[in-house]
Amino acid sequence: MNHRAAPLPQQLSLRCLSCREEYTATDAGTCKECYEEASETEDELKSEIDDLKAKVAFLRLGSSPLDSHKRSSALGFSDVVLVASDEFHSNPVSLLAHKAVLASRSPVFKAMLEIEMEESRSGTINISDVSYDALRAFVNYLYTAEASLDEQLACDLLVLAEKYEVKYLKTYCEKFLVSKLNGQNSIASYSFAHQHNANHLVESSLSMIIEDMANLTKSEEYVHLVDKDPKLVVQIYETYMSKQVNTAARID
Amino acid sequence: MNHRAAPLPQQLSLRCLSCREEYTATDAGTCKECYEEASETEDELKSEIDDLKAKVAFLRLGSSPLDSHKRSSALGFSDVVLVASDEFHSNPVSLLAHKAVLASRSPVFKAMLEIEMEESRSGTINISDVSYDALRAFVNYLYTAEASLDEQLACDLLVLAEKYEVKYLKTYCEKFLVSKLNGQNSIASYSFAHQHNANHLVESSLSMIIEDMANLTKSEEYVHLVDKDPKLVVQIYETYMSKQVNTAARID
Repeated sequence: MNHRAAPLPQQLSLRCLSCREEYTATDAGTCKECYEEASETEDELKSEIDDLKAKVAFLRLGSSPLDSHKRSSALGFSDVVLVASDEFHSNPVSLLAHKAVLASRSPVFKAMLEIEMEESRSGTINISDVSYDALRAFVNYLYTAEASLDEQLACDLLVLAEKYEVKYLKTYCEKFLVSKLNGQNSIASYSFAHQHNANHLVESSLSMIIEDMANLTKSEEYVHLVDKDPKLVVQIYETYMSKQVNTAARID
Repeated sequence: MNHRAAPLPQQLSLRCLSCREEYTATDAGTCKECYEEASETEDELKSEIDDLKAKVAFLRLGSSPLDSHKRSSALGFSDVVLVASDEFHSNPVSLLAHKAVLASRSPVFKAMLEIEMEESRSGTINISDVSYDALRAFVNYLYTAEASLDEQLACDLLVLAEKYEVKYLKTYCEKFLVSKLNGQNSIASYSFAHQHNANHLVESSLSMIIEDMANLTKSEEYVHLVDKDPKLVVQIYETYMSKQVNTAARID
């Protein structure tokens, strides 16, 4: 005959309604009511996401799966030409687009096209220092809010977004570049971000640099930045020192 | 001196991590790990919703808060005129729009404008049997994916969406009308839905009618429908009967 002691309350075994595993009182999460409410909330949020995705698909211009450089021209009825010129193309390359779309996405295009400027008279907008691929991705983004970024393209698009004041695209590129920050690219990113007023990227790259101050002077990018823009290097040291002082103050 | 018995396991009191209330083992929901995961999932879903909302705001054409009838014209660079004519307006009223936007949203507009039809030559599209308000709301929806629906407007827009094959808008209106179904409007909705191939609304209104078969013949709408389209009335009875048979079969 077995005399087993009643379980201690803490050892009482419960079964989780979500993962179906057993757990003890110390690992308890929620009551049943909250679990059910949370499940409902999750379903509602997922359904809202589906609705929003459908709305995005509807609002994209030229929603058929076209090669991006064909999209704006395939929409038809274009009334403006964008011409890309960079150092690599002796012959400028061009893209068809729509004034109403460009003006709706960018206050700079809007001003160019509405005011009696060269662009509105000729129906041609020249965009300098940009590769055809970057311009194509830029225009495609204005029509669809989509881009397959890599680090180079994110930088190119950030520059265009800054120049033409497409805030939403700038934020998108900045977030991407922040997600790609590492010990190797933090100084270059910091310098690039400063140049293009990407404050979120400035702060994130600066934090990353400061985490590894001991190795700062060993990198080539550092030497290059001292040469090119010493004031930015001074800011690194100043930020580092102010954090040291704050930490010291907390310890005291 | 108090000799209190140890609590029975079922009565053990736990505290919910979500609502902070106490509960007993029988009302237990999830373990701590699943609770934490669910909270993270909820945060991720909310952040995805914020991203999608921002994308929708970016993709809307003419995102400034304009009166809807000014939106497409304020975008500028319009290249087509929509003219509404209905029995109430002796003078037709018109709206400015953009061929690229209309063609992108509606295959019917696309065909009209691309093929050498009267519309593409004249740059004017006549839309008959529509009020100016409905046309204005329709065009506004094509630019923004937004409409403040009431039942009349939802019907008007569903008709336009059907005619110009704007599937997304048709679904949107249909969902709205389903949400407004009641004992009073179910027969009218059923008839309207049939007329415009709104299958989801057909099914929902039919279910509602069948729930209250005892009162069917008492309503004016019923009498009207028998007169106007007796075959639709036959379908009501046939559906009702087939459900009766199915129910009887289950009981046997």
